[in-house]
Amino acid sequence: MAEINHRIGIAGSASDIYHALTTDEGLARWWTTDTSGAGEAGSIIRFRFGGGGPDFEVVELIPDSLVRWKHSGDVPPAWMGTVITFRLEQGEQQTYVRFVHANWTEASDFMAHCSTKWGVFLLSLKAAIETGSGRPFPRDIHIDHDE
Amino acid sequence: MAEINHRIGIAGSASDIYHALTTDEGLARWWTTDTSGAGEAGSIIRFRFGGGGPDFEVVELIPDSLVRWKHSGDVPPAWMGTVITFRLEQGEQQTYVRFVHANWTEASDFMAHCSTKWGVFLLSLKAAIETGSGRPFPRDIHIDHDE
Repeated sequence: MAEINHRIGIAGSASDIYHALTTDEGLARWWTTDTSGAGEAGSIIRFRFGGGGPDFEVVELIPDSLVRWKHSGDVPPAWMGTVITFRLEQGEQQTYVRFVHANWTEASDFMAHCSTKWGVFLLSLKAAIETGSGRPFPRDIHIDHDE
Repeated sequence: MAEINHRIGIAGSASDIYHALTTDEGLARWWTTDTSGAGEAGSIIRFRFGGGGPDFEVVELIPDSLVRWKHSGDVPPAWMGTVITFRLEQGEQQTYVRFVHANWTEASDFMAHCSTKWGVFLLSLKAAIETGSGRPFPRDIHIDHDE
Protein backbone atom coordinates (compact mmCIF):
# COMPACT_ATOMS: atom_id res chain seq x y z
CA MET A 1 0.00 0.00 0.00
CA ALA A 2 1.17 3.53 -0.79
CA GLU A 3 0.35 6.72 1.05
CA ILE A 4 0.64 10.49 0.96
CA ASN A 5 2.17 12.31 3.93
CA HIS A 6 2.27 16.03 4.72
CA ARG A 7 2.98 18.20 7.74
CA ILE A 8 2.46 21.93 8.14
CA GLY A 9 2.48 24.35 11.08
CA ILE A 10 -0.31 26.88 11.46
CA ALA A 11 -0.28 29.93 13.72
CA GLY A 12 -3.73 29.22 15.09
CA SER A 13 -5.48 27.22 17.76
CA ALA A 14 -6.21 23.51 17.44
CA SER A 15 -9.84 24.43 18.03
CA ASP A 16 -9.96 26.76 15.02
CA ILE A 17 -8.27 24.19 12.79
CA TYR A 18 -10.57 21.43 14.04
CA HIS A 19 -13.54 23.63 13.11
CA ALA A 20 -12.07 24.08 9.61
CA LEU A 21 -11.89 20.28 9.24
CA THR A 22 -15.29 19.35 10.63
CA THR A 23 -17.84 21.86 9.37
CA ASP A 24 -19.16 22.69 5.91
CA GLU A 25 -18.30 26.35 6.41
CA GLY A 26 -14.77 25.56 7.57
CA LEU A 27 -14.01 23.04 4.82
CA ALA A 28 -15.36 25.46 2.20
CA ARG A 29 -12.70 27.97 3.23
CA TRP A 30 -9.79 25.81 2.05
CA TRP A 31 -10.73 22.71 -0.02
CA THR A 32 -13.82 23.41 -2.10
CA THR A 33 -16.47 26.08 -1.70
CA ASP A 34 -19.09 23.41 -2.60
CA THR A 35 -19.02 21.27 0.56
CA SER A 36 -22.02 19.80 2.34
CA GLY A 37 -22.92 17.16 4.90
CA ALA A 38 -20.12 17.58 7.45
CA GLY A 39 -21.08 16.51 10.97
CA GLU A 40 -20.56 13.86 13.59
CA ALA A 41 -19.04 10.44 13.01
CA GLY A 42 -21.15 8.57 10.48
CA SER A 43 -21.99 11.66 8.44
CA ILE A 44 -21.15 11.75 4.74
CA ILE A 45 -19.38 14.85 3.46
CA ARG A 46 -19.90 15.69 -0.23
CA PHE A 47 -17.03 17.62 -1.79
CA ARG A 48 -17.84 18.94 -5.26
CA PHE A 49 -15.49 20.46 -7.82
CA GLY A 50 -17.56 21.98 -10.58
CA GLY A 51 -20.04 19.10 -10.59
CA GLY A 52 -18.46 15.82 -9.52
CA GLY A 53 -16.27 15.06 -6.58
CA PRO A 54 -15.68 12.61 -3.76
CA ASP A 55 -17.78 11.69 -0.75
CA PHE A 56 -16.16 10.86 2.56
CA GLU A 57 -17.66 9.24 5.63
CA VAL A 58 -16.49 10.73 8.90
CA VAL A 59 -15.25 7.67 10.80
CA GLU A 60 -13.46 9.14 13.82
CA LEU A 61 -13.40 12.49 15.58
CA ILE A 62 -11.41 13.50 18.66
CA PRO A 63 -12.09 17.18 19.35
CA ASP A 64 -9.12 19.46 18.64
CA SER A 65 -6.94 16.40 18.00
CA LEU A 66 -7.95 13.98 15.24
CA VAL A 67 -10.22 13.80 12.18
CA ARG A 68 -10.50 10.65 10.10
CA TRP A 69 -12.49 10.12 6.93
CA LYS A 70 -13.03 7.03 4.83
CA HIS A 71 -13.68 7.44 1.13
CA SER A 72 -17.31 6.65 0.30
CA GLY A 73 -18.73 6.25 -3.18
CA ASP A 74 -16.93 5.55 -6.41
CA VAL A 75 -15.14 8.70 -7.60
CA PRO A 76 -12.33 8.98 -8.16
CA PRO A 77 -11.92 5.19 -8.54
CA ALA A 78 -8.32 5.22 -7.28
CA TRP A 79 -9.54 6.67 -3.97
CA MET A 80 -11.83 3.72 -3.16
CA GLY A 81 -10.82 2.23 0.17
CA THR A 82 -8.52 5.10 1.02
CA VAL A 83 -8.52 6.75 4.44
CA ILE A 84 -7.56 10.33 5.28
CA THR A 85 -6.34 11.29 8.74
CA PHE A 86 -5.60 14.76 10.09
CA ARG A 87 -3.79 14.82 13.45
CA LEU A 88 -3.45 18.13 15.29
CA GLU A 89 -0.49 18.61 17.60
CA GLN A 90 0.03 21.71 19.71
CA GLY A 91 3.49 23.25 19.38
CA GLU A 92 4.94 26.23 21.19
CA GLN A 93 4.06 28.83 18.58
CA GLN A 94 1.83 26.90 16.21
CA THR A 95 -0.43 23.89 15.74
CA TYR A 96 0.98 21.18 13.52
CA VAL A 97 -1.29 19.40 11.08
CA ARG A 98 -0.06 15.92 10.21
CA PHE A 99 -1.90 14.59 7.17
CA VAL A 100 -1.98 11.05 5.82
CA HIS A 101 -3.97 9.78 2.82
CA ALA A 102 -3.44 6.03 3.14
CA ASN A 103 -4.38 2.72 1.53
CA TRP A 104 -3.63 3.55 -2.10
CA THR A 105 -3.13 0.36 -4.09
CA GLU A 106 -0.15 1.87 -5.94
CA ALA A 107 2.05 4.95 -6.15
CA SER A 108 0.57 5.92 -9.52
CA ASP A 109 1.01 9.17 -11.42
CA PHE A 110 -2.45 10.09 -10.17
CA MET A 111 -1.42 9.48 -6.56
CA ALA A 112 1.64 11.67 -7.14
CA HIS A 113 -0.62 14.40 -8.56
CA CYS A 114 -2.89 14.15 -5.52
CA SER A 115 0.15 14.32 -3.23
CA THR A 116 1.21 17.67 -4.68
CA LYS A 117 -2.37 18.93 -4.74
CA TRP A 118 -2.96 17.98 -1.08
CA GLY A 119 0.12 20.03 -0.22
CA VAL A 120 -1.38 23.01 -2.02
CA PHE A 121 -4.72 22.60 -0.23
CA LEU A 122 -3.05 22.24 3.18
CA LEU A 123 -1.27 25.54 2.52
CA SER A 124 -4.71 26.88 1.64
CA LEU A 125 -5.91 25.70 5.08
CA LYS A 126 -2.90 27.44 6.65
CA ALA A 127 -3.69 30.68 4.82
CA ALA A 128 -7.39 30.44 5.68
CA ILE A 129 -6.58 30.27 9.40
CA GLU A 130 -3.70 32.74 9.43
CA THR A 131 -4.92 35.37 7.00
CA GLY A 132 -8.62 34.65 6.65
CA SER A 133 -8.19 33.96 2.95
CA GLY A 134 -7.62 30.42 1.70
CA ARG A 135 -7.51 29.14 -1.88
CA PRO A 136 -10.33 26.59 -2.09
CA PHE A 137 -11.63 25.36 -5.45
CA PRO A 138 -12.43 27.15 -7.75
CA ARG A 139 -9.73 29.61 -6.68
CA ASP A 140 -7.19 26.84 -6.07
CA ILE A 141 -3.57 26.98 -7.19
CA HIS A 142 -3.08 24.85 -10.31
CA ILE A 143 -0.19 22.41 -10.39
CA ASP A 144 -0.48 21.46 -14.06
CA HIS A 145 -2.29 22.54 -17.23
CA ASP A 146 -4.94 19.82 -17.16
CA GLU A 147 -6.89 21.41 -14.34
CA MET B 1 10.52 1.80 3.07
CA ALA B 2 8.54 5.00 2.73
CA GLU B 3 8.68 7.52 -0.09
CA ILE B 4 7.53 10.94 -1.23
CA ASN B 5 5.76 11.29 -4.59
CA HIS B 6 4.81 14.39 -6.54
CA ARG B 7 3.73 15.25 -10.09
CA ILE B 8 3.41 18.65 -11.71
CA GLY B 9 2.96 19.89 -15.27
CA ILE B 10 5.11 22.72 -16.58
CA ALA B 11 4.47 24.77 -19.71
CA GLY B 12 8.05 24.46 -20.90
CA SER B 13 10.32 22.14 -22.84
CA ALA B 14 11.86 19.03 -21.35
CA SER B 15 15.20 20.51 -22.35
CA ASP B 16 14.66 23.66 -20.27
CA ILE B 17 13.53 21.65 -17.26
CA TYR B 18 16.44 19.22 -17.60
CA HIS B 19 18.78 22.24 -17.58
CA ALA B 20 17.12 23.46 -14.37
CA LEU B 21 17.80 20.06 -12.77
CA THR B 22 21.39 19.52 -13.90
CA THR B 23 23.23 22.84 -13.63
CA ASP B 24 24.17 25.04 -10.68
CA GLU B 25 22.53 28.03 -12.33
CA GLY B 26 19.34 26.11 -13.05
CA LEU B 27 19.05 24.54 -9.59
CA ALA B 28 19.70 27.92 -7.96
CA ARG B 29 16.59 29.27 -9.65
CA TRP B 30 14.22 27.02 -7.70
CA TRP B 31 15.76 25.06 -4.78
CA THR B 32 18.51 27.09 -3.18
CA THR B 33 20.50 30.00 -4.53
CA ASP B 34 23.60 28.46 -2.90
CA THR B 35 24.17 25.45 -5.17
CA SER B 36 27.49 24.22 -6.50
CA GLY B 37 29.06 21.17 -8.08
CA ALA B 38 26.37 20.05 -10.52
CA GLY B 39 27.69 18.15 -13.50
CA GLU B 40 27.86 14.74 -15.11
CA ALA B 41 27.16 11.44 -13.37
CA GLY B 42 29.55 11.06 -10.45
CA SER B 43 29.58 14.74 -9.57
CA ILE B 44 28.59 15.85 -6.06
CA ILE B 45 26.10 18.70 -5.80
CA ARG B 46 26.26 20.80 -2.63
CA PHE B 47 22.97 22.42 -1.69
CA ARG B 48 23.31 24.95 1.13
CA PHE B 49 20.58 26.64 3.13
CA GLY B 50 22.14 29.43 5.15
CA GLY B 51 25.19 27.35 6.03
CA GLY B 52 24.43 23.63 6.17
CA GLY B 53 22.64 21.47 3.68
CA PRO B 54 22.72 18.18 1.88
CA ASP B 55 25.09 16.82 -0.73
CA PHE B 56 23.87 14.61 -3.53
CA GLU B 57 25.79 12.46 -5.96
CA VAL B 58 24.46 12.48 -9.49
CA VAL B 59 24.02 8.77 -10.22
CA GLU B 60 22.08 8.71 -13.49
CA LEU B 61 21.30 11.19 -16.25
CA ILE B 62 19.27 10.65 -19.41
CA PRO B 63 19.11 13.94 -21.29
CA ASP B 64 15.67 15.58 -21.25
CA SER B 65 14.24 12.49 -19.57
CA LEU B 66 15.66 11.42 -16.21
CA VAL B 67 17.77 12.78 -13.35
CA ARG B 68 18.70 10.64 -10.36
CA TRP B 69 20.63 11.64 -7.27
CA LYS B 70 21.78 9.62 -4.29
CA HIS B 71 22.17 11.37 -0.96
CA SER B 72 25.84 11.75 -0.06
CA GLY B 73 27.18 12.88 3.31
CA ASP B 74 25.45 12.86 6.67
CA VAL B 75 22.96 15.73 6.81
CA PRO B 76 20.13 15.53 7.35
CA PRO B 77 20.58 12.08 8.96
CA ALA B 78 17.14 10.87 7.90
CA TRP B 79 18.12 11.39 4.26
CA MET B 80 21.05 8.95 4.38
CA GLY B 81 20.56 6.26 1.77
CA THR B 82 17.68 8.08 0.11
CA VAL B 83 17.44 8.48 -3.66
CA ILE B 84 15.72 11.25 -5.58
CA THR B 85 14.44 10.73 -9.11
CA PHE B 86 12.99 13.27 -11.51
CA ARG B 87 11.35 11.82 -14.64
CA LEU B 88 10.32 14.16 -17.43
CA GLU B 89 7.42 13.18 -19.65
CA GLN B 90 6.30 15.20 -22.64
CA GLY B 91 2.56 15.91 -22.72
CA GLU B 92 0.54 17.73 -25.34
CA GLN B 93 0.70 21.17 -23.77
CA GLN B 94 3.22 20.68 -20.99
CA THR B 95 6.08 18.60 -19.65
CA TYR B 96 5.24 16.53 -16.61
CA VAL B 97 7.78 16.21 -13.82
CA ARG B 98 7.34 13.04 -11.79
CA PHE B 99 9.30 13.25 -8.56
CA VAL B 100 10.16 10.45 -6.12
CA HIS B 101 12.25 10.74 -2.96
CA ALA B 102 12.61 7.08 -2.00
CA ASN B 103 14.21 4.79 0.58
CA TRP B 104 13.16 6.55 3.75
CA THR B 105 13.33 4.17 6.71
CA GLU B 106 10.01 5.49 8.08
CA ALA B 107 7.16 7.86 7.33
CA SER B 108 8.23 10.19 10.15
CA ASP B 109 6.99 13.71 10.89
CA PHE B 110 10.19 14.93 9.26
CA MET B 111 9.48 12.96 6.10
CA ALA B 112 5.97 14.45 6.05
CA HIS B 113 7.49 17.93 6.40
CA CYS B 114 9.86 17.23 3.53
CA SER B 115 6.96 15.94 1.43
CA THR B 116 5.11 19.24 1.74
CA LYS B 117 8.30 21.22 1.24
CA TRP B 118 9.23 19.29 -1.92
CA GLY B 119 5.80 20.17 -3.29
CA VAL B 120 6.51 23.84 -2.63
CA PHE B 121 9.91 23.64 -4.31
CA LEU B 122 8.50 21.83 -7.34
CA LEU B 123 5.99 24.65 -7.73
CA SER B 124 9.00 26.97 -7.49
CA LEU B 125 10.57 25.02 -10.38
CA LYS B 126 7.31 25.41 -12.32
CA ALA B 127 7.27 29.16 -11.68
CA ALA B 128 10.96 29.51 -12.56
CA ILE B 129 10.34 27.95 -15.98
CA GLU B 130 6.98 29.53 -16.72
CA THR B 131 7.45 33.03 -15.33
CA GLY B 132 11.22 33.33 -14.91
CA SER B 133 10.80 33.81 -11.18
CA GLY B 134 11.03 30.84 -8.80
CA ARG B 135 11.05 30.84 -5.01
CA PRO B 136 14.38 29.21 -4.08
CA PHE B 137 15.79 29.48 -0.56
CA PRO B 138 16.08 32.07 0.99
CA ARG B 139 12.93 33.35 -0.73
CA ASP B 140 11.12 30.03 -0.28
CA ILE B 141 7.53 29.68 0.85
CA HIS B 142 7.39 28.65 4.51
CA ILE B 143 5.15 25.78 5.51
CA ASP B 144 5.50 26.17 9.28
CA HIS B 145 6.89 28.62 11.83
CA ASP B 146 10.11 26.72 12.56
CA GLU B 147 11.74 27.70 9.27
